[in-house]
Amino acid sequence: MTDKTSNTLLDQPKNRNSASGKKKTGATAETMAGKQRDISISEFFAKNRHLLGFDNPKKALLTTIKEAVDNALDACEEAHILPEIYISIKQITENKYQVVIRDNGPGIVKRQVPNIFARLLYGSKFHSLKMSRGQQGIGISAAGMYGLITTGEPVEVVSRTSSKHHGYYCKLKIDTAKNRPVIVEEGQEEDFPHSTGTAVTIILEGRYNKGKQSVDEYIVQTAMANPHAIITYDSPDGEHYEYQRQSSEMPFIPIEIKPHPYGVEVGMLYQMAQDSKTKKLPEFLNKEFSRVSVNLAKKITKDAGLSLSLKPSKASLPEIDQLHKVVNETKIMAPSTSCIGPIGEERLEEGIRRVVEADFYATCTRRPSVYRGNPFLVEAALAYGFQNGSDKENRDDDTKQLMQLKRIANRVPLLYQQSAGAIHKAVLDINWRNYALSQSKGALPAGPLILMVHVASVWVPFTSESKEAIAHYPEIIKEIKLAVQECGRKLGVYLRRQKKIKQELAKRSYIKTYLPHIGDALKDILELSEPQTEDVIAKLADTLERSRKF
Amino acid sequence: MTDKTSNTLLDQPKNRNSASGKKKTGATAETMAGKQRDISISEFFAKNRHLLGFDNPKKALLTTIKEAVDNALDACEEAHILPEIYISIKQITENKYQVVIRDNGPGIVKRQVPNIFARLLYGSKFHSLKMSRGQQGIGISAAGMYGLITTGEPVEVVSRTSSKHHGYYCKLKIDTAKNRPVIVEEGQEEDFPHSTGTAVTIILEGRYNKGKQSVDEYIVQTAMANPHAIITYDSPDGEHYEYQRQSSEMPFIPIEIKPHPYGVEVGMLYQMAQDSKTKKLPEFLNKEFSRVSVNLAKKITKDAGLSLSLKPSKASLPEIDQLHKVVNETKIMAPSTSCIGPIGEERLEEGIRRVVEADFYATCTRRPSVYRGNPFLVEAALAYGFQNGSDKENRDDDTKQLMQLKRIANRVPLLYQQSAGAIHKAVLDINWRNYALSQSKGALPAGPLILMVHVASVWVPFTSESKEAIAHYPEIIKEIKLAVQECGRKLGVYLRRQKKIKQELAKRSYIKTYLPHIGDALKDILELSEPQTEDVIAKLADTLERSRKF
Repeated sequence: MTDKTSNTLLDQPKNRNSASGKKKTGATAETMAGKQRDISISEFFAKNRHLLGFDNPKKALLTTIKEAVDNALDACEEAHILPEIYISIKQITENKYQVVIRDNGPGIVKRQVPNIFARLLYGSKFHSLKMSRGQQGIGISAAGMYGLITTGEPVEVVSRTSSKHHGYYCKLKIDTAKNRPVIVEEGQEEDFPHSTGTAVTIILEGRYNKGKQSVDEYIVQTAMANPHAIITYDSPDGEHYEYQRQSSEMPFIPIEIKPHPYGVEVGMLYQMAQDSKTKKLPEFLNKEFSRVSVNLAKKITKDAGLSLSLKPSKASLPEIDQLHKVVNETKIMAPSTSCIGPIGEERLEEGIRRVVEADFYATCTRRPSVYRGNPFLVEAALAYGFQNGSDKENRDDDTKQLMQLKRIANRVPLLYQQSAGAIHKAVLDINWRNYALSQSKGALPAGPLILMVHVASVWVPFTSESKEAIAHYPEIIKEIKLAVQECGRKLGVYLRRQKKIKQELAKRSYIKTYLPHIGDALKDILELSEPQTEDVIAKLADTLERSRKF
Repeated sequence: MTDKTSNTLLDQPKNRNSASGKKKTGATAETMAGKQRDISISEFFAKNRHLLGFDNPKKALLTTIKEAVDNALDACEEAHILPEIYISIKQITENKYQVVIRDNGPGIVKRQVPNIFARLLYGSKFHSLKMSRGQQGIGISAAGMYGLITTGEPVEVVSRTSSKHHGYYCKLKIDTAKNRPVIVEEGQEEDFPHSTGTAVTIILEGRYNKGKQSVDEYIVQTAMANPHAIITYDSPDGEHYEYQRQSSEMPFIPIEIKPHPYGVEVGMLYQMAQDSKTKKLPEFLNKEFSRVSVNLAKKITKDAGLSLSLKPSKASLPEIDQLHKVVNETKIMAPSTSCIGPIGEERLEEGIRRVVEADFYATCTRRPSVYRGNPFLVEAALAYGFQNGSDKENRDDDTKQLMQLKRIANRVPLLYQQSAGAIHKAVLDINWRNYALSQSKGALPAGPLILMVHVASVWVPFTSESKEAIAHYPEIIKEIKLAVQECGRKLGVYLRRQKKIKQELAKRSYIKTYLPHIGDALKDILELSEPQTEDVIAKLADTLERSRKF
């Protein structure tokens, strides 16, 4: 179907002359049919690159780093390797940058390297119901395609899968019209520093800035969310950053699950039944879904008025429709949560300590919950009263400084579209005055405060393909609120205790100042001896200090 | 590459047992390679349906209607046929609807029907540089896929391409794992009411509401933006609407253009040069781009320090890089605008009159302009002081009623995400007090006022694939402001004149009330006769009425 003449990155009009020659007469079904053709997914995303986070050079640089680091961390996790990630960004010309990301993961076998780095919609994560950073098999090849379009330079990949062999090296570009990789150059790489791992080099049009939504900020937050990873970063302005490992325990390793029946729509159920190799409906329900026991499967089939021996592939649409209705009216256990894993309260605190030294920390990891049949869980960590670098300038004016909100989804920091997402909404919905903080209407609470919220799921419902904000599912917002409120309550207890300690100290100094005078007066009135006076004063001080009313 | 076992609509985990069995040992590059595979574009969009505007049942119903109507209007335009569109929505069960859209377009040849209605990324518009409502070849097949997933029902299509034959009829469903159509049933349709045309029936999970962002509102606005179309609509609650043709002239028919050199990035230019069949660089520049004359092409080549006889396909990346730099430093005429067409000031007014009877109308069609090498143009139409149906309840309180903003892109109404788009931003940036309207800070102006803004381009830069808002390109915002400001100025003149007429009338009644008394007084003081008095009074009245100071 793909047209040979269109083998270019740019979508060109096909029959220019005939198109303008046809100005005066209308097209017919037959002439229009001649123009109808396939559009490759790469052409589609090359033209719609803003959908993937390549809107402008600044965001493109961030997205490229993000996609490569996500993949590196995912690969290490899957291979149970404690990650060591190296990131380098070099400026080549005014708006041309070279990006290198290297990991100590399991590497990628030679035959898959071209597909993974130069073919969109190719990967292992899309069809798997478990938590991972990447979801779609688009990101890293889209970054390579963006580099190719904006600079003409191919992607360079080094991969080593065993300490017994040297690494494999290749230069790749994507054939956009076909969505297929083209190997420009390949060979052996003898200098790879780890026994296994992958390194990718992309040259692209970019812009490097500091501050919010910057690459630096993304790396800091990634270090927070992944305390088990060593991250080393050489920035374009020559600075060198190292985030040491805070925890050498492997994080939770998620495993795949079967789909839960609540998340399946009629048409999907019908298609699954038609494709099923099972012999009978109850067997189908039991084998292809999670949480449906043999007995429950039989009960559902009976309640739907269907025969227990009906072959799934022979069931009609109305029969499946009936089955679907009964499934959704039946109480079924929530899906297993072995497919998602928390960072964990202890690690959350380690992570946040990595970037901020604060007076007080609080964390909360909620139990897993379910939206649209998908398991998810929420965690929150909070740091109060910090003094570190970038925030020093705000210290004078604590009350005007607003909370810094860090949003993380499946351990990946989200830097764009804060106010569009579920995390922001949940945090705004909370009344922070209950926790002894000041808050203006419709704004984040004020104070020297960092709040990090992590949402983990087998399928994070992002509002856009560039993965910038989580959609407003009520179930997710509710869980975020519960996690954040628990941290808030702990903070409120701490802040009130701090206040009380302050008052207590004030009271003590008050007592110290006035008691001697009272002692003198008592001594005169009651004609007490010196030791008697001291004794009374001591008792009085003790009583007053204990008193809550004073 | 596509895996046979995955032939279902749902993304299922592949090796469930082995996945959970591998819980304790990490994956290797080899085991991971086994799981890596192709993801079909249909699987991708089935899972990410919110990217296409199928977030929830209400929006899904609107999106389905929108995609089918867009296609119908585009097809009629391309065939130079004045459109007659019929829309019907019927409620089948509580949340199941049947949607029918029928047009009198050229029809679709039999062999293309399955591809167009049951295959994503297939169509004629993506590769063509001219203005059209559809852009990607996704919409209508995505609507069919959504219907299939949510109800299991196939899409039904009737198409007739000639009055000499009966229509062709088929039922289709998409094979999501392969992104290919499956014909469920086909035959001949003898009752098609037009000599040529297409009808599509989709059954889907939906929700029907009235009001903002409703199907009804979309249809009203479509009628406004397409005064040359007859639109008939039977709504689910049994109402029948007819929008008669306001203009029987065919609208502007856009024709395709070649890409403009300013819009081409280095990597694209390199790829185009490599694929080019031209023999020499100047020929390449002249033949494959618009607005580059032979002489200009030679000058650019020389200025880039390249040989005039260099074969494009032999040029190196650094050579193309140099060429690209010089292209962008050279003054090149703006692209031809035959690829885009305005609705036109007269038709804009006809369109807005279709839905609102107002005291005053103003319109403005700007000349075409360019962003990122893409031609675009902006039009605005304004109606002030209306009395029609749905707005009656607001009439009492004109000052609190805000402007109603109608956003149109390539003649398609945009109903979602108003505040995210360029049109809203431009309208807010204008100081409406200059035009005698009241306006609060950060809000639309107040008054019984409808403003319709139309942006037409060969490539409308939407902020998302669901085509809800136009991205904030400064060039586009500037043009929107200029168009709206011109309407605003006309409105300002009208409103000030109205004010003056009111004052004038007040003055006249004042004169009429007091002059007789003055006459009596003068008569006494100056001892005038009756006719003399009348004469003086008449002169006085005349003088006073002319006076601007009084």
